[in-house]
Amino acid sequence: MSQPTFEALLYDVEDGIATITLNRPDRMNAFTARMMKDLLEVFDVTDADDAVKAVIITGAGRAFCAGADLGGGGATFDRSSPQAIEREEGKVGDVYRDGGGRVTLRMYDSLKPIIGAINGAAVGVGVTMQLPMDIRLASTEAKFGFVFARRGINPEAASSWFLPRLVGLQTALEWCYTGRVFPASEALEKGLVRSLHAPDDLLPAARALAREIADNTAPVSVAITRQLLWRMAGASHPMEAHMADSRAIQSRGASGDAKEGVTSFLEKRAPVYPNRVSTDLPDIWPEWREPEFR
Amino acid sequence: MSQPTFEALLYDVEDGIATITLNRPDRMNAFTARMMKDLLEVFDVTDADDAVKAVIITGAGRAFCAGADLGGGGATFDRSSPQAIEREEGKVGDVYRDGGGRVTLRMYDSLKPIIGAINGAAVGVGVTMQLPMDIRLASTEAKFGFVFARRGINPEAASSWFLPRLVGLQTALEWCYTGRVFPASEALEKGLVRSLHAPDDLLPAARALAREIADNTAPVSVAITRQLLWRMAGASHPMEAHMADSRAIQSRGASGDAKEGVTSFLEKRAPVYPNRVSTDLPDIWPEWREPEFR
Amino acid sequence: MSQPTFEALLYDVEDGIATITLNRPDRMNAFTARMMKDLLEVFDVTDADDAVKAVIITGAGRAFCAGADLGGGGATFDRSSPQAIEREEGKVGDVYRDGGGRVTLRMYDSLKPIIGAINGAAVGVGVTMQLPMDIRLASTEAKFGFVFARRGINPEAASSWFLPRLVGLQTALEWCYTGRVFPASEALEKGLVRSLHAPDDLLPAARALAREIADNTAPVSVAITRQLLWRMAGASHPMEAHMADSRAIQSRGASGDAKEGVTSFLEKRAPVYPNRVSTDLPDIWPEWREPEFR
Repeated sequence: MSQPTFEALLYDVEDGIATITLNRPDRMNAFTARMMKDLLEVFDVTDADDAVKAVIITGAGRAFCAGADLGGGGATFDRSSPQAIEREEGKVGDVYRDGGGRVTLRMYDSLKPIIGAINGAAVGVGVTMQLPMDIRLASTEAKFGFVFARRGINPEAASSWFLPRLVGLQTALEWCYTGRVFPASEALEKGLVRSLHAPDDLLPAARALAREIADNTAPVSVAITRQLLWRMAGASHPMEAHMADSRAIQSRGASGDAKEGVTSFLEKRAPVYPNRVSTDLPDIWPEWREPEFR
Repeated sequence: MSQPTFEALLYDVEDGIATITLNRPDRMNAFTARMMKDLLEVFDVTDADDAVKAVIITGAGRAFCAGADLGGGGATFDRSSPQAIEREEGKVGDVYRDGGGRVTLRMYDSLKPIIGAINGAAVGVGVTMQLPMDIRLASTEAKFGFVFARRGINPEAASSWFLPRLVGLQTALEWCYTGRVFPASEALEKGLVRSLHAPDDLLPAARALAREIADNTAPVSVAITRQLLWRMAGASHPMEAHMADSRAIQSRGASGDAKEGVTSFLEKRAPVYPNRVSTDLPDIWPEWREPEFR
Repeated sequence: MSQPTFEALLYDVEDGIATITLNRPDRMNAFTARMMKDLLEVFDVTDADDAVKAVIITGAGRAFCAGADLGGGGATFDRSSPQAIEREEGKVGDVYRDGGGRVTLRMYDSLKPIIGAINGAAVGVGVTMQLPMDIRLASTEAKFGFVFARRGINPEAASSWFLPRLVGLQTALEWCYTGRVFPASEALEKGLVRSLHAPDDLLPAARALAREIADNTAPVSVAITRQLLWRMAGASHPMEAHMADSRAIQSRGASGDAKEGVTSFLEKRAPVYPNRVSTDLPDIWPEWREPEFR
């Protein structure tokens, strides 16, 4: 199957694993409106392709993503500047939707697990875009910075919602107040990333984790799991989870996937799940309303 | 006082501490509809009995709970199978309420602290049922697995609400996506359990912790504390806590318990609290509405 | 500029950093209605003074705050006792608002970062008042205790909302159920405090952190950051953050602060931000409603 191509990304699917590579290595993969649009599109591709069981995101060259491209100088973040024109489509009423937030909200709704392989510097939107990924592995050479307050702006990409849920409020506040750049070891210690790896071992480790998911678990189960955990992170009462997971268990319990999952386990063999995300994902959210930007 | 008996549980109260033992050791305490009903009932018993100051849950034999009993093979999770008949009472409209979720929501409402003494394997509902317990101690021999996606089903028992609040989203997602079984050491490192103990030391350690609560603190205070912390875990603003705890302080501050608590502290002696959960628990929740299954 | 004075607090501003010192050292800085009123007032002062970039709170003498002053004996917490008269202004309908909660809700709304320098014993309201501070540093001599259930009352000051968001539910529940006093090392290990320091190094460390914020980051950016992270800690969906931070980026991106932030970075020099919290804080919360006590 031929794969789509993008201007600011490389995209590759191999043996169930999609790899997205931020690809502006001469600019340290700095984030642009083009990269934003490519990212919005690529997750539509991975969601629609049943051959994709897991997604890896990494960066080309020595950086992961150096944040906004500061080529515009002091006007970089000015929405009335010429650069803003290509962002126009993100305007609702008088408000320009933040481009990083459009990307992170799209990732939040992904039906496939997203694994970050953070290969180098990740500052500004280069780190906030990582927060809705499910699991982050980092190179020992990576470094991170929520530098917004040092540029006279503020944390974006909905990071105020995501970050404290990953590392707790105390650490999130210190990182955002000081705007300091910190090493991979601190990101590991505080729980931002799940493990550190020598640079050459990073992608193999990310692929091994993606393999573990793709080889053992049912894709429809994984898609439901992703929705349940992310949506319930903001839910007021466990009854909301109970209403959704009761419907999910009722649907999946009677499915071919469940028969295969239990039978293959009892027979001690590898499973071959019959169901597909594109056609078999049940509606388990009678009460869920996707919020609109207002 | 004679104690109730159960088919799938042992139940014992001694010196202020109730011990519930999952008791199907020949089936690794696998979860059945009978066990579900017994668990729903036993927390009504502990809530109503003022002699119970804390509750310990453990398993008979070498497992804690091996999850659903897979004796039904590929039809195990099929709600239209014969086994489903005994679950019929959990049906609302066209939806079967998940049995694990009925248990965890009942624990969520417990008026007594619940301490898990996880003595061995705990997979599937055997681990999700632990999440609304307050504190988990584990044997070094215990192992854990959120194996649902490997069986073609999905995390249940409202675990999507509970688990990320205990171990963070990143760890919760990895455990649920991979479905892998992991050792007690990982459960400790990630914060799922609070401490590890040699097998013979596990119940004594759980009892020592229960003793510390029972001997020092006022039961009505503990019941209010339990409601406050669990309910506020999903609240949007600290004002919700302030409205409830202001009412609680007003009620308890004028109580015999407060007089005894302060006086015994100043006199450096053990307290003898006069108030009882069954009769003296104030209504501090003018705005709280228990959500209904829909 | 002359600074206001308080009865139960010392207040000092030097080089951008305000230091608030709880000042009843002969009573271990025990909390009184007077101290509550002083704390409510002092955060109005720090919010209004553009010379204040960060706030440090510490205690005079060897304690941070020993909790409620138990000079009233068994009637200490009785709202119908004579001491309650000075609390009358906190009454809404028939309910006395908890004084600790009035303070923590005021801190929650602070526009300036709050750094706790916990120099000694901190029990009862002495620890719950710390929870809405942003970052806590502690002396190795400090100790902590959520002792409420040992006094026949309950955790207050909206701590049921704050505490689990800092240390997780399992630890929060154990500390509140047992009411035990625990050492600084446990507070560090569980994430209540961010770092430990020898007694003489504590204030210098707190000041160094406040300096890092004051010298590098734009005050309006920091105020927006504070609102975003605290408010989104209770939000149900990241769209709420996206709506607010899009407005913030639109406002700040076109500001003098952003021009200076980017330009000073590119020129590798210290920034001099032109904007002020008192006049330049944008309204980014079209949907936010401050909840009322009911």
